[in-house]
Amino acid sequence: MMKTPGFSFAVEATDGDARAGTLVTPHAVVETPTFMPVGTQGSVKGLTADEVAATGAGIVLGNTYHLWLRPGAEVVRALGGLHRFTRWRRAMLTDSGGFQVFSLAGLRAIDDDGVTFRSHLDGSARRMTPEESVKTQGLLGADIAMAFDECPPGDADRDVIRRAMDRTSAWAARCLAVERPEGQALFGIVQGGIHEDLRHEHLQAIAAMPFDGVALGGLSVGEATADMHRTLAAVTPSMPADRPRYLMGVGAPRDLLAGALAGVDMFDCVLPTRNARNGQALTWGGRVNIKQARHKLDAGPLDPRCDGPCCDGGGGTYTRGYLRHLYVAGEMVALRVLSIHNVHFLVTLMRRMREAIKAGRAREFARDALEAMREGDEVGPADPASKGRPVGAPGAAPPRR
Amino acid sequence: MMKTPGFSFAVEATDGDARAGTLVTPHAVVETPTFMPVGTQGSVKGLTADEVAATGAGIVLGNTYHLWLRPGAEVVRALGGLHRFTRWRRAMLTDSGGFQVFSLAGLRAIDDDGVTFRSHLDGSARRMTPEESVKTQGLLGADIAMAFDECPPGDADRDVIRRAMDRTSAWAARCLAVERPEGQALFGIVQGGIHEDLRHEHLQAIAAMPFDGVALGGLSVGEATADMHRTLAAVTPSMPADRPRYLMGVGAPRDLLAGALAGVDMFDCVLPTRNARNGQALTWGGRVNIKQARHKLDAGPLDPRCDGPCCDGGGGTYTRGYLRHLYVAGEMVALRVLSIHNVHFLVTLMRRMREAIKAGRAREFARDALEAMREGDEVGPADPASKGRPVGAPGAAPPRR
Repeated sequence: MMKTPGFSFAVEATDGDARAGTLVTPHAVVETPTFMPVGTQGSVKGLTADEVAATGAGIVLGNTYHLWLRPGAEVVRALGGLHRFTRWRRAMLTDSGGFQVFSLAGLRAIDDDGVTFRSHLDGSARRMTPEESVKTQGLLGADIAMAFDECPPGDADRDVIRRAMDRTSAWAARCLAVERPEGQALFGIVQGGIHEDLRHEHLQAIAAMPFDGVALGGLSVGEATADMHRTLAAVTPSMPADRPRYLMGVGAPRDLLAGALAGVDMFDCVLPTRNARNGQALTWGGRVNIKQARHKLDAGPLDPRCDGPCCDGGGGTYTRGYLRHLYVAGEMVALRVLSIHNVHFLVTLMRRMREAIKAGRAREFARDALEAMREGDEVGPADPASKGRPVGAPGAAPPRR
Repeated sequence: MMKTPGFSFAVEATDGDARAGTLVTPHAVVETPTFMPVGTQGSVKGLTADEVAATGAGIVLGNTYHLWLRPGAEVVRALGGLHRFTRWRRAMLTDSGGFQVFSLAGLRAIDDDGVTFRSHLDGSARRMTPEESVKTQGLLGADIAMAFDECPPGDADRDVIRRAMDRTSAWAARCLAVERPEGQALFGIVQGGIHEDLRHEHLQAIAAMPFDGVALGGLSVGEATADMHRTLAAVTPSMPADRPRYLMGVGAPRDLLAGALAGVDMFDCVLPTRNARNGQALTWGGRVNIKQARHKLDAGPLDPRCDGPCCDGGGGTYTRGYLRHLYVAGEMVALRVLSIHNVHFLVTLMRRMREAIKAGRAREFARDALEAMREGDEVGPADPASKGRPVGAPGAAPPRR
């Protein structure tokens, strides 16, 4: 169970390994499985907090690394914490900054105490430790903080992964020892790559600690999709049943469905907003590439099956023809509408999955949804050679959280 | 009076030369004086139609030149016209494309029949004539179309201006001869630079034609502000009293106030959105430069005297500290909030001017507003050497419509 006062998690229904639950935080009651859009630098890219709320999202992720560098956690604290700063009223989770330190920062040197690196903004020398991460997250003041972990790349050797596991375990204990503000939970992170034995071993270590929830890190970092799905199916059911389970940095529809079927409760990814900036809309009929000339005279919405704020058939409807024009003309509004649409789509995908779990037809729902998306997919099926690339971004680099 | 069925204009109150009126169009009843934000390429830069409506704007300007080149007027027509295309439900006016042909396009050659030029998008050869402009505006289908005029630069010789006047008069007659769709009015344009005698002469010619409204073109094109204000005061009161008077391409607060005092009813400018992209907010206490470090920890709104959707003191309030962070971090949301704020400010400035006219205190209102803006101005008073530069953009080029 969740230990921090003000938090609770209950599983309402299961269907195979999949679960429909309710996560209570000081700011919101979040129904799971749930997709969390990412507010990288204090905003979900291009969107106001009100727009994010209108997508139905119940919880947003904030990036500690970015906010720590700019404007600084003390500034956010002085302006009332991340909730007041960003005007987001529902639940919020901050990552530890570890993923960005390992993926964005330059010249990093890891030792057992922490990581020294250069800021990607100005090249200045910085040091992040488990203590600094939890302290920083305390200043930001999200509902849920994450332990500082070492996240090795997807092609790392087994012994590199094992060393990262050991370090992550030691850092987990140090994170738990740091005092947090009232009303802030802390989740631990399991590493182990795509090695089932390592995953189980590390899961045991992390699950034994008094974390409020347990996350799977180190997936969607370059490994093949099939390996990720196999690992999820093998490991997730062994995660503590009475605490929330969070799969970090994953947002492609097929990965959300595979994760939810395996029993994951929470997901986050920049995929919906990043794909929007590339002109891609996620729809129930597959991906729409708004740049294509075929949309030029199309008076229909992005997705006739969508009940979201951009496709609703009322005054809110944006036609494909209009959106194509705005995108081609470089007008910001196109990115916004596609971003709202894509976030709404993933939030709704998980909401419908939740309904399917409660109805005992989770597998059926996932199968039918994937089949319909494959059929109409404008971008074509994902390149089988594009290991770990999300469905929504063939040929693109794995999304950064 | 306005000749086109579906349109009417009535002056409700006057105060000196200033007037408070009501312009009825097929899509809206617009209270004047009014400021029209500019929807350059089918959107007011960065804003959805709903956001523009939330600023209180009753009428928006669309750029015929941009839409003619991309996506093409036939495409807009096929998607239901500019109103349906852009989701804007209130009144709309399109310019003739002339201003952009003269300011944006390359290698132009003017003859008595029209203008040949190269598209700024792809360098392709294009030709615009009075007939093509009105026909294009008919396809776009705004409430109000503008006659195609020749707009010489602010430093043009007197004989260049006179030739432009003559051509504009001939083109005006040709524009009136083109059939327009039902429910579309047509305004004529007066040229003449800052020469009062030429302005009066051309005004007589244009006012004698059966236009639904009369506009002043060729101001805010590089001339000194004092010359513009002098010209406005001398010419505007002679414009037909029973038709709307429109001052084109002007949006700095002091110019709006000077124009309204002289009897102008309608204004348009890209200033509010362009200044937003430069980090400038227009406030009742002067311009705020959101980039400045002094805003870093400021938990106050952009303007405590503003009742707009970004400063309202409720859940909508964006703090200066948050906006500065977003702007410095390059996050789009900063540009949006500043754009909404600035459009709302100019729309409200004219709404309050209207109230002042009705209360018989127009001059007082303008004087007090300008004084308060000067006092708190963060950017400093406009450079006296910056001829024709709008208050909101010292050192910048004159805004393009």
